[in-house]
Order: sequence, then structure tokens, then C-alpha cells
Amino acid sequence: ASNFFLLCGPCAIEGEDMALRIAEKVVAITNKLEIPYVFKGSFKKANRSRVDSFTGIGDEKALKILKKVSDTFGIPTVTDIHEISDAYLAAQYVDVLQIPAFLVRQTDLLVAAAETGKVVNLKKGQFMSPEAMKHAVQKIKDSGNEKAWITDRGTMFGYQDMIVDFRGIPTMRQYAPTILDVTHSLQQPNQSSGVTGGRPDMIETIARAGVVNNVDGLFIETHFDPANAKSDGANMLHLDLLEKLLTNLVTIRKTVNGLG
Amino acid sequence: ASNFFLLCGPCAIEGEDMALRIAEKVVAITNKLEIPYVFKGSFKKANRSRVDSFTGIGDEKALKILKKVSDTFGIPTVTDIHEISDAYLAAQYVDVLQIPAFLVRQTDLLVAAAETGKVVNLKKGQFMSPEAMKHAVQKIKDSGNEKAWITDRGTMFGYQDMIVDFRGIPTMRQYAPTILDVTHSLQQPNQSSGVTGGRPDMIETIARAGVVNNVDGLFIETHFDPANAKSDGANMLHLDLLEKLLTNLVTIRKTVNGLG
Amino acid sequence: ASNFFLLCGPCAIEGEDMALRIAEKVVAITNKLEIPYVFKGSFKKANRSRVDSFTGIGDEKALKILKKVSDTFGIPTVTDIHEISDAYLAAQYVDVLQIPAFLVRQTDLLVAAAETGKVVNLKKGQFMSPEAMKHAVQKIKDSGNEKAWITDRGTMFGYQDMIVDFRGIPTMRQYAPTILDVTHSLQQPNQSSGVTGGRPDMIETIARAGVVNNVDGLFIETHFDPANAKSDGANMLHLDLLEKLLTNLVTIRKTVNGLG
Amino acid sequence: ASNFFLLCGPCAIEGEDMALRIAEKVVAITNKLEIPYVFKGSFKKANRSRVDSFTGIGDEKALKILKKVSDTFGIPTVTDIHEISDAYLAAQYVDVLQIPAFLVRQTDLLVAAAETGKVVNLKKGQFMSPEAMKHAVQKIKDSGNEKAWITDRGTMFGYQDMIVDFRGIPTMRQYAPTILDVTHSLQQPNQSSGVTGGRPDMIETIARAGVVNNVDGLFIETHFDPANAKSDGANMLHLDLLEKLLTNLVTIRKTVNGLG
Repeated sequence: ASNFFLLCGPCAIEGEDMALRIAEKVVAITNKLEIPYVFKGSFKKANRSRVDSFTGIGDEKALKILKKVSDTFGIPTVTDIHEISDAYLAAQYVDVLQIPAFLVRQTDLLVAAAETGKVVNLKKGQFMSPEAMKHAVQKIKDSGNEKAWITDRGTMFGYQDMIVDFRGIPTMRQYAPTILDVTHSLQQPNQSSGVTGGRPDMIETIARAGVVNNVDGLFIETHFDPANAKSDGANMLHLDLLEKLLTNLVTIRKTVNGLG
Repeated sequence: ASNFFLLCGPCAIEGEDMALRIAEKVVAITNKLEIPYVFKGSFKKANRSRVDSFTGIGDEKALKILKKVSDTFGIPTVTDIHEISDAYLAAQYVDVLQIPAFLVRQTDLLVAAAETGKVVNLKKGQFMSPEAMKHAVQKIKDSGNEKAWITDRGTMFGYQDMIVDFRGIPTMRQYAPTILDVTHSLQQPNQSSGVTGGRPDMIETIARAGVVNNVDGLFIETHFDPANAKSDGANMLHLDLLEKLLTNLVTIRKTVNGLG
Repeated sequence: ASNFFLLCGPCAIEGEDMALRIAEKVVAITNKLEIPYVFKGSFKKANRSRVDSFTGIGDEKALKILKKVSDTFGIPTVTDIHEISDAYLAAQYVDVLQIPAFLVRQTDLLVAAAETGKVVNLKKGQFMSPEAMKHAVQKIKDSGNEKAWITDRGTMFGYQDMIVDFRGIPTMRQYAPTILDVTHSLQQPNQSSGVTGGRPDMIETIARAGVVNNVDGLFIETHFDPANAKSDGANMLHLDLLEKLLTNLVTIRKTVNGLG
Repeated sequence: ASNFFLLCGPCAIEGEDMALRIAEKVVAITNKLEIPYVFKGSFKKANRSRVDSFTGIGDEKALKILKKVSDTFGIPTVTDIHEISDAYLAAQYVDVLQIPAFLVRQTDLLVAAAETGKVVNLKKGQFMSPEAMKHAVQKIKDSGNEKAWITDRGTMFGYQDMIVDFRGIPTMRQYAPTILDVTHSLQQPNQSSGVTGGRPDMIETIARAGVVNNVDGLFIETHFDPANAKSDGANMLHLDLLEKLLTNLVTIRKTVNGLG
């Protein structure tokens, strides 16, 4: 019966200035729209298609920027982890540890994340059914941590496309608060170039469908210059488009909250 | 900027009483909610999984019932056709000729339907991309008929499941008014029993996602006793649930119409 | 324990000369390799993507050419039918009536084909599981005709690709003699051009995998000039490549026949 | 033009006795059939569906058993790694480091494996196209190691099924020696029980289709008592069935080697 919350920020932490600049803008928008906001940024990128893809500016350097964003604006932050040692490292700087979709079946990583006591945001594998996420959530709970979230980032559909199955939203909300990742859900992987493509023109379509179905949170990657971002430029939403999108979505959610 | 319209009725015309009973109820609801209403009923079922499945009560008998519904309530009607000769026959009784999803690549059938001058409702094949429907619409236009509609009834996802790709709604609306078939989209085909299954519990989820994305129409199969219906009982919405569903959807659409 | 049989010929009957020319060449090859041969040609094309695609040279004209091929070379022939009236018409000229994949759920068409007493070759729908073909075969048998064949022509995989599931070969051979359509299985549908693409470079890969798994028959569309064929040029095998392909496949089958 | 090689053994190293017992049996068969043999066993299982699934007997204990198998029979061994630290650890005991399918996009892990100088066997992600494996192989080569292998273990097909795309064999053989994992390819994931199912009855079907298409290697998990194995019992081949299977496959390969 409340508003959705928002995980939002750049794909990767490219530097302090860009992180603060994006956070400041999103904080202003979400304050105005009364959307609880968690700043998102990857401190390293570990699963790029090619070895020469951008992987980060340095782990601790990026994590300290996340902490600075948190301190500056008084907001929680989220970052994704890829190894057991990342869990303990990142937990010193952020509030939510996110498990990437490819890694959500790695039990040791989930247990390590859970044991930090932080919120653990489990991305549904592109190869997993919504129902299978029940087992991932259970691994967090069996490790003594009740704070699991699920994020849907789409499901493989053929080799070069992804699709969002909206039957998954009510299904996964039975297990944990469920977030819709509207930017990665629109990726088009396995392109012959080795660089993942996308359909950012469909962000509002997908986001509306989630919000109207009571999704608990939205995940949106954004940048003030997507074309020159160090990673995932094909999918990020231009920061200038964020306010109008969120304004529409909040209006829809308010209507939904009033339904019988 | 207006309300969605509704194609609604039983899967098959099982008799005059049941047709009038369903129509009367839906007319009352749609009048109240100001939803333009087209009564739907198949005059024969031609593509059942098994030869002993119900196929109809007789072609002209069923078509005359459709005409009686139309005359009684002053509403248009729609039925699906399977052969060229069906086009001319059905056009004498109904206002909209619907091309089943399996048959939407049969050029002769589309041309025959188009040449009647009736509205032609083209169901997207479960094996077709939204973009491919452009060619189906073009066949109607090339036959001198501008009144094509498209209906999405889901896309194959593995052997025993279907999924709705909501990117298809804005895509197909570029070609023609687009309807979301919320009951067939939730079918689960190729079940070992030879009887198609379904997920009717997800009807509102799928319908909301369509309405919030400006779909032009909704297609809903309904019955006052789905468990004992002659066909598709696993997917039809119970008639008692229709008013609350449509009330929510109209509220959502009004909000969407007011968005920036 | 015997050789596979072959359904082979051009996609469409474009004229008498081309039909006889192709048949003569294939007869020579299959006689040499002791492959039972059924000449294949469509007398009309009914499900093209676009209304301006080639649809045929005239129904009876094309059927008479099929009969002439049969008489000239003493071989059976197969053609595909799209409407109930086609069944009775085509049965006067050919030995095997083929049901297109899109139409294999149309009960009336299957019953009409079965009632001619001809062999009925049922193409598995691109949207059907191998197991679901059991019901299609049963419809032929329930109509008093025991002579059903099944042909696999691939299964939808995303919007723009097809895949062959080789688990389907032993599964469908439980229901009826099973044929692998190696040219259509390699189609890539829903291309933005409105013309289906293909991967003819993979024909031998797919054919070998079928033959080594005891498929009963192969279906291969061939032409002496695929690039200028009236339909399906992207998928047909060049006639010059047929002998080497079949020679390899017969060698493989002989080995398989000797396995424990 | 030579025989295929074989990666074969139990899913997990459950103890020394079972490992030696399985190796002894497979060595006898592969010596007789002149198949180059690599003993396979996981030293830990890191991606089970449930936290209470079996994960191993202890890392070094299991790795020492792999070394003992190697020393006892004079054969190479392969095991899968899940973290960067695993690469250096396992490289002290085995000859081939295998990257699990879920982890094949983790650049750091691939680089760590490559830097050991061992052969790196890259499992194709269930969510990846054959073409995308080119980039994974390139990461190994860019790390100064030319000894990459690719293993296909099937591709997601809907939520609860996998399929093998045989077009991938010739495609991936352009990048590196390509192995077909015939037991994992027949898994059926995301079952409601939380335990992956399978179709072991189709092992020979899939294996034949690979061997007839010149696959470089086969990967087969086997056990003398699959029903009581600690993991993946639904998919392993009973050890008693291995000799007949391999005998057939070698016969097929010899025929293929003689083709034009």
C-alpha cells in the first residue's frame, strides 16, 4: 500500500564526481516524489564479454566513493559482489549486497553475503524460473539473515533476446520483496559484436507493467551521458529522462494503491 | 486517450441460453463502466488437441445465436473463421472476423476475410514476432480493407508454456489497433493429457500490464461455469469476477490517460 | 534396419520442365544409393509472409505436373494441402498428402486428408512438442487411416531462430514413421525483411544427426538454382550437392544398422 | 580424422574407493576402444539448488584423490573451479581446469585459470549462443594460454527444459576443440522439487548426433549406483551401460572418419 523504492545509479563507479553528480540529481527527484532511494553502483565489473572491457577504477577506491555518496546524501547504497572475499570487503562500505544473476546459484557466495547481516539482493538468473528463486531466498534465511530481496532482470528468449515474464512478479513476491530491473531486462545479449545491445525505448513500457502489478522496487541504471559510459551504455536511461518516468510511475502506483 | 474496448464472451457458442445469459451480464457491466463491447463466441472449434474434443453445435445454428445476441443487445459480435468459405458465411452474421493464431499466415484466408469488408482481427501466431504482424496487417490493406486489428495471445516459451512480451504492445500499435487476449495468453499447451492447461490466477496481472501500456482492447473469455464449459475451461475467467477486474482496469486506464 | 527414404524436390512446382529436370536427377542418385524416393513439390504456397510472394502456377496445372513426374519415373509423389477441398483435389494426383506445420492442429483438415486413404504426412508444428504429435497421429487413425507419417521441421527458439530437438526423433517414432525436414528446420523466420532466412550450411550437420538416430525418412528441398527459385531460396540445397550428401548419409545409416 | 576423447567420471568425488573403482572400469573400456581418457570429478559442488545439498568431502581431500587416480592409472584428470583461489589450488593436482557454465562470463576466473598454464575447459553458459563462446576462448588466449577447450552442456528452452543445438558443434569447433556434455545436456532444471531432473534415456541419441558431427570430445558423468550418488543422480549414466554406448560411438566415428 506504499510507494515503490528505487535502486538507481550508474552501471559502474567511474569516479567520485560522476557518482556524486548522479546521486545529487536522483536524490532531488526521489525526495520530491517521496520514493525511498538506494544509490547503486558496481565497484568492479567481473563478467564482461571481452577481456578488454572496462572492469573498474580499483575496488577500494570505488567502495569509498559509494560510502561518500551515502554520507553526503544520507542514503543507503547497493553494490554487486562476485567472490566470497568481496562480501566482507563490500559490507564495510554499503548497505545492500547484490548477487549478480549469473552467480545466484553459487551457494558459498550467498552464504557469505548473508553472514554479513546486510540486505542481500538476489538477481534472478536469466536461466531460472521465478519459482526457483524460492530456493535462493531460502539459502539466505538458512544462513540466519531474513533480509533477502529478489530482482528480476529478464529471462533468456532465444540466443539474442530477453523477455520479462510478469507472472513472476506476484510469484516472487511470495518469497521476498521483489524488484524489477528495467534496464537490464531490456538487454539483447550474445550479439555478434561481443557488446550487449538493448532496447532502452521500452523502459517505460516494462516499468509501468511492474508498477501496476505492485512490484516492491525498481532498479534503473542511469547516466548523464550513456553513450560515453564505461559499460552498458546501450541500456542505461539518460538521467534527463528519469524525472518524467518516475512521475508517471508514482501516479500509477497511487492509483493502484487505491484499487479494491 | 479513451477507454479500452472489450471482446468478451464464452470460448464456444454452446447454445442460445448461455450466450444470451453471458451477453446480458457483460452488457450490464460494460455499460456501467463505459467500455465499448463486442460479444465474442466461436461458432466452431477447429483446432482441438484431440478428435473427440467438442467442436460446436452446428455452424449456422451458432452463427444465428451470435446474430440474436447482436440484435437483442445492440452490440457488435466477433467470431473466428478457419476456411475461406467460413469468411463469406460468418460475414452474414457478425461484425468482426477473427483469424486464429495458427492460421494467420494463410494468405488466402486473410484475403477472403478482408474482402468481406468486415473488421479483420488478426491473432498473432504464437510463433511470430510482434514485428512480423506488420506483414499480416499489410495483406488486409492490400486487399482493400483498412479495418485490421491485431490480438496478442502470447508467444511460445519452451514446449509447455507461453509468455506475453509487452514490448510487442507499442510495436504492434504502430501497425493497427492492438488487443491483448488475457485468457489465451495464459494457456500452457502441449500438456501430456492432450488438454491445454492454464494460469487464470494471472489474468489481472497480465491485463493490468496491457492497460497501463495503452493497449486498445482486451479479449477475455468468460463463462458462468468454466469448469463445465465445453472448451478451454482451464483458461476462462469466471463471469462473477469480471466486474471487479474491469473496474480496476478502467481506473488504471483513466490514470494513464492523464499522464504527461 | 533398412535405409531411410527420401522426400525431395523443389519447394514449389514452378513448371513442368523444372520438375522433370529435378526428378530425373534425384531418381538417378536415389536409384544408385538404393534410397526409396518420393518426389515433393507444393502445388500452391498458401502461407507466405507477404501478399506479393509467389503462390503458384495454378492448382490443377501443378498437380498434373506432379502426376506426370510420377508416371514418367514410376515414383510416388507428395504435396501439401491447406484446405479441406484441397484434400480431395490433390488425392487424385499424388500418393502422400502433407499437412503443413501451421495447420496440423486443424482437425477437419486432418480428417479430410485421412479419409482419402492416402498416406498423411503430418508436419510437427513449430509450436508443438514431439509428444503432442501423438494426438495428431491419433486423429488420422481415428478416421480409419493407419498410414500417418510425422515430419519434424524444427521448433521455435526465440522469435528469429529455430532449433531441432533430437530427443524428438525416438519420441515421435513411437507414434509413426518419422521424417526429418533438414531444409525447413534450418529456417530463420520473422526476419525484418519479411522474407524467411536460413542456414543451408548446416544441412549435413542436421541430416547426419537424424540418420545416425534411425530417422525413417529425410525431407530435402532442392533446386538447380536456389537463388532464383520462386520460394524458399534461402533454405534449399543446391541439386549439385545432393549426391555427396546422400552418399555420406547412406554410409552412416549402414553403419548404424550394424550396431548392437 | 581421429577418435574422440572422453571426459568421464562421477559428478562429485565422494571418496577414494568410489573414484578408483570408477576410473578402473573406464580405463579398461577406453583402453580397449582406444579412446583418450581424462578422469573427471568435482572436488566441491558450489551451485546446488538448496543449501542442504551435498557440497563435497573437503577440498584438498578430494583433490588428492584426483591426483591418486592420475598416478594409479597414468591418466590426466579434470575438475571444475568456482573461485580465483580454486585455480591455483586445483592446478597443483589436476591437468584440466573446468569453468562451470554459470561462471563462464567471470573474466577474473578465466584469467586465473589460464595463468596456471593448464588446459582450460570452458562450459558454454546455458544462456549463451555458440558464437558467444568465441569471446570466452579469446580471454584464455589473451592471457597467454592457447589450450582452451569448449564444452556444450545444452541451452535453456523455457524454464524447465534444455536443448542441444547441433549447429553449435561446427560453429564452436572453429574456436577450440569442442566437447559435448551428454549428461548435463539432458538436465531438466527449475523443477518444483528444487532437485534438477533429467532424461538419461536420451544419452545415446545426443551422443550419436555429436560423434557423427566430429565433436572432439565427449563428457559423460557415470556412477555404479546413480540412484544413490551424492549429486546429479537423475542424469548420470550407469557405469554398466558405458561400454556398449562407447562401442557404438567408436564404430560411428570410424565410419565418419572415412567419409568424403
